[in-house]
Amino acid sequence: MHVIDAPHLRLLRLLRDEGPISRAELGDRLDLTRPRLLAEVERLVAAGYIAEAGMAASRGGRRSTLVELQPQLRFAAVDLGASSIDIEVTNGRLEPVATYQEAADIRSGPKAILHRVNELLAKARTDGAYERLDAVGIGVPGPVSFRDGVPVSPPIMPGWDRYPVRESLAREHGCPAVVDNDVNIMAIGERHGGVAHSVDDFLFVKIGTGIGCGIHLGGDVYRGVDGCAGDIGHIQVDAHGPMCSCGNAGCLEALFSGAALARDALAAARSGESPALAERLAAGGGIGARDVADGAAEGDVTCIRLIRDGGRRLGATLATLVSFANPSMIVIGGGLAQLGHILLAEIRSVVYRRSLPLATGNLPVVLSELGARAGVSGAAVLASDTAFEQAS
Amino acid sequence: MHVIDAPHLRLLRLLRDEGPISRAELGDRLDLTRPRLLAEVERLVAAGYIAEAGMAASRGGRRSTLVELQPQLRFAAVDLGASSIDIEVTNGRLEPVATYQEAADIRSGPKAILHRVNELLAKARTDGAYERLDAVGIGVPGPVSFRDGVPVSPPIMPGWDRYPVRESLAREHGCPAVVDNDVNIMAIGERHGGVAHSVDDFLFVKIGTGIGCGIHLGGDVYRGVDGCAGDIGHIQVDAHGPMCSCGNAGCLEALFSGAALARDALAAARSGESPALAERLAAGGGIGARDVADGAAEGDVTCIRLIRDGGRRLGATLATLVSFANPSMIVIGGGLAQLGHILLAEIRSVVYRRSLPLATGNLPVVLSELGARAGVSGAAVLASDTAFEQAS
Repeated sequence: MHVIDAPHLRLLRLLRDEGPISRAELGDRLDLTRPRLLAEVERLVAAGYIAEAGMAASRGGRRSTLVELQPQLRFAAVDLGASSIDIEVTNGRLEPVATYQEAADIRSGPKAILHRVNELLAKARTDGAYERLDAVGIGVPGPVSFRDGVPVSPPIMPGWDRYPVRESLAREHGCPAVVDNDVNIMAIGERHGGVAHSVDDFLFVKIGTGIGCGIHLGGDVYRGVDGCAGDIGHIQVDAHGPMCSCGNAGCLEALFSGAALARDALAAARSGESPALAERLAAGGGIGARDVADGAAEGDVTCIRLIRDGGRRLGATLATLVSFANPSMIVIGGGLAQLGHILLAEIRSVVYRRSLPLATGNLPVVLSELGARAGVSGAAVLASDTAFEQAS
Repeated sequence: MHVIDAPHLRLLRLLRDEGPISRAELGDRLDLTRPRLLAEVERLVAAGYIAEAGMAASRGGRRSTLVELQPQLRFAAVDLGASSIDIEVTNGRLEPVATYQEAADIRSGPKAILHRVNELLAKARTDGAYERLDAVGIGVPGPVSFRDGVPVSPPIMPGWDRYPVRESLAREHGCPAVVDNDVNIMAIGERHGGVAHSVDDFLFVKIGTGIGCGIHLGGDVYRGVDGCAGDIGHIQVDAHGPMCSCGNAGCLEALFSGAALARDALAAARSGESPALAERLAAGGGIGARDVADGAAEGDVTCIRLIRDGGRRLGATLATLVSFANPSMIVIGGGLAQLGHILLAEIRSVVYRRSLPLATGNLPVVLSELGARAGVSGAAVLASDTAFEQAS
């Protein structure tokens, strides 16, 4: 079944993604008759979504008026991590006009965290980033009922279960709001402006403190029946593996994730097994993924082994998911993507060896292009889509 | 995004699934105005899809004319297995008017097998089952490019790679044809008339000679980028496990499938470990899934252990897929579904223990209702949908 979105939605997205376009070209691109297009444009001008922007260069005949998104359109994009708040205020074309980033503990609960988000957005207004917001998009680090706009039983977010995040933000800012899982918004960002540009079926694997997977199927985010599709961190990959924070043994993220890597790196530093890590530990503070990446770059064999072991574990799970879902791309993002090509090479090797030849014949496994900005980028895309859908 | 199919498609499906309906009720059910409905009905009568069928009982006002599918509509549903051909010719309501079943080796190649299919269908015509076919639906035991109507690199179907199955059947019978994977058509059948009735997101796991999975997401079959989504038989579950026919070690279907169970049962019969199986082997012929099921029913501990071991292996893979896809139901079908409740209990136990509580809070794991008829049922549904789509 081929689905075509409503004309106003396609028109607004086109202006968002490509900038000012002449009316003549818009009619061609959207396959609308001239009267239909003019009526649509007139309606969206009146509703405050678009504006006329002078004349386009001649295409040979009469010159056509340029149309653009209202320059005052503003979206707020919020990416809540386990220990961080990232905010971008963007214009209609999703270009940032203000950004804020600070540490925050998600376990402080929804009231404290959302209060701080609202304070930062108030500061953005004082700073002149916007007069009023047209939509707010927010990602949270746990399962979300997308339909209801609430987190659902999020393991690392005490106090957030079914808290009305969407309703609370919509009321505060007097505009539509939309809530999604943090990995889903990263995948949306990567599809809009990153390495998965226009790819319809792909998996975005975030390796951060934990592990999660954003799933795009047929061009849309697939969220599952309860909103927890892609929650692959607690797949058991080794019944005799280390204990996981969830209480089970041998979960994928107990074997390979930011937390697991820090644990293994610290042990290798203390035991002296890795001179590179021991030196870094002695030099001060903690040991993390960055140290392992640097150690590997210097040729420290333990650092290289830690990355390869992790890639092998993750690769085996991804091979299973490739056999199941037959995607056309896998994108690796999150903090541990900085482990770079050693990690990627190991994942590729396992996935290509263990999945069906038909499914891997043309399956790129690549690093995220947007890096730490993937989350806010996707939240801005979601916010704009939500605003545009309401322009009907 | 909510998609509503074209009115003619909804109308024809309604008559297929519920039988004759009055014009008045059709208008209500399809939410069409009276003139729109009458125009649609008139058009479909003229095109030979529907017919008028007398007057409905009064609803208080004027009596309304009943509408039904043309009684002469006929669909051919074909289910090709590794070693069998199953055919049903159905009327418009998908009730069988003729059925044929015989052994056939898929490795004989497409010309020989499709020739035999055509012979059986010619026999059905001679037997008076139809005058002309309105569509043919066929399932084959391998990956399929649904768009192109051809098998793609099917491992157990030598000679079939990219053979124009759809085109060949359409030409032979002068009607639309549609080709899909055997597990996909079983899942379609189960959703139309079986235990997954109206369930939008579910996995249909076929355990036959091999293992495969049909995936329904958002009410539609999900086929993946290359048509091989759901090909879970060659997921590696034990690096030290037995060799698989694909050349790798420890694939899921090398550990649990009809072929693997026959192998393990024969070993247990020969070694005398299982008195029940030894007795059956001595009594004559081969040993198969049926013998293991019967042995387990008699309390033979080896038979029970074989089923439990298989359920545990399959359950671990399904737990991974549940964490990934968050479906609302798992249906177990294929020949090994006859292992019954011991198998089901073991699968459930592993899936519920290893997947996220949120994803398994309300996740039935159930046996196929249609059994051996699931494939032809689904092929008939696909055939009718294909014919109805062309009625526009």
